[in-house]
Amino acid sequence: MNSYYNLSMNNLKIISGIRQKKSLLCVGLDTDIQKIPAHLLGYDDPIFEFNRQIIDATAPFAVACKINIAFYECMGKKGWDSLEKILAYIPQEIFTIADAKRGDIGNTSAMYARTFFETYRFDGITVAPYMGEDSVKPFLEYTDKTVFLLALTSNKGAADFQWFSNGERTLYQAVISQSLQWEKETGGTLGYVVGATRPDDIAGIRTMAPDKFFLVPGVGAQGGDLHSICQKGKNDQGGLLINASRSVIYAGSGEDFALKSAEAAAALQKDTALYCKEI
Amino acid sequence: MNSYYNLSMNNLKIISGIRQKKSLLCVGLDTDIQKIPAHLLGYDDPIFEFNRQIIDATAPFAVACKINIAFYECMGKKGWDSLEKILAYIPQEIFTIADAKRGDIGNTSAMYARTFFETYRFDGITVAPYMGEDSVKPFLEYTDKTVFLLALTSNKGAADFQWFSNGERTLYQAVISQSLQWEKETGGTLGYVVGATRPDDIAGIRTMAPDKFFLVPGVGAQGGDLHSICQKGKNDQGGLLINASRSVIYAGSGEDFALKSAEAAAALQKDTALYCKEI
Repeated sequence: MNSYYNLSMNNLKIISGIRQKKSLLCVGLDTDIQKIPAHLLGYDDPIFEFNRQIIDATAPFAVACKINIAFYECMGKKGWDSLEKILAYIPQEIFTIADAKRGDIGNTSAMYARTFFETYRFDGITVAPYMGEDSVKPFLEYTDKTVFLLALTSNKGAADFQWFSNGERTLYQAVISQSLQWEKETGGTLGYVVGATRPDDIAGIRTMAPDKFFLVPGVGAQGGDLHSICQKGKNDQGGLLINASRSVIYAGSGEDFALKSAEAAAALQKDTALYCKEI
Repeated sequence: MNSYYNLSMNNLKIISGIRQKKSLLCVGLDTDIQKIPAHLLGYDDPIFEFNRQIIDATAPFAVACKINIAFYECMGKKGWDSLEKILAYIPQEIFTIADAKRGDIGNTSAMYARTFFETYRFDGITVAPYMGEDSVKPFLEYTDKTVFLLALTSNKGAADFQWFSNGERTLYQAVISQSLQWEKETGGTLGYVVGATRPDDIAGIRTMAPDKFFLVPGVGAQGGDLHSICQKGKNDQGGLLINASRSVIYAGSGEDFALKSAEAAAALQKDTALYCKEI
């Protein structure tokens, strides 16, 4: 194990999950009440019940769980209620990520950090870099947490600004190189969001950030190629959390939905296990 | 009145406020329970009580009210409760802005738009552009709302990426010119966040976007020069919402805090009235 690896307690939780489960899978709980099986709608809290069954079904195959805050926030207080129960239900060994993409001036980012790291006790969060250093550092100051900064995202719109180039480097490359400095200054733990739809770029990003975990959305519904991403993006510790949301949680729509999700998660675990052998 | 102005019903609400109150003031409710006067802590909901008194005190002088979501979100469900009551309490003629700085892939941005435009009925929202077109359009598709896209922000970190240049234009200029196209394609209403700490740049931004409202944070606690910004940034309809948060809401800390806030708001109204004469 090379000494340059950032072995925060936090990342050790991910690495230990990868070793134990031979998986790089992160399950994304983007739960939309309009998409869950009809038979769950009679429950007091159908969103919780759906997530509870998905968590039970996929936990054996997943090292992390990413909760897309938008899907809970849009339900108002009821959504935050469900979120709290879901967080409490997720097994302790699974690394939890608030997919929140927050970022604001310093005193406001500090409030967002407090929200997701103290009010809710997530292990990590996704953060947007547009507002620069003082918008990111308040998250990094929680040195026992992991901050996944948006670098090169999986969506079509990523091309609009992230590839903007000053001749020497692109915006996303500038985000990576400057944020590595902020990580040093705070003693925090960085990761990056790198879309699975960008296999040609991930190798270069790995060179820039050899020891960082990449949270990789875009396999499944968005069409990213898992094997290509794993081959080009992995490092000695795995270094990847391959997120699948819709393709796992909506794998089925009937009474056997949880079984279908388990099957989808198991298939992804099996695919990613190829890259966990030496970890 | 020039025909190129985008007279959405929504912006008419702002313009009518400017005409009536002779003010460009937007009051920012960044309410932190650790900073409100001690005598309010005995109330059932001290955050609501503080904001209620600030709203009463400043409403005669303000055309808009910006609620910084981070400060409510960090209190969990209780915070969203306060937020709901505050929104219901704000007088109908005041334009409400969710300062949320959200932005994600299309299906997730659609959920955030639903949160702030449907679950809560804000008139406008701040949005972060890093993820590009499909992260912004779901907000613009609410054609009766105003989407204030981050362009050049007021904080120190703005220099890290927003001035990144491809030789022809900076990132923030690219954000403005591309988003104007998205506005056309959706029929929505754009505005921009332009920091008051950037008086030298606002004239250029006004040239790029002559008919847009700019939400201008950074006067007060962040040190922006109000007169310089107004002279260089205004248009025939005002075109500016000058936001003051901490300098207004924490103007006093005793039992007369609301009076002190009224005085601070009145002073800003008077200062901005100079630029409202011909509107």
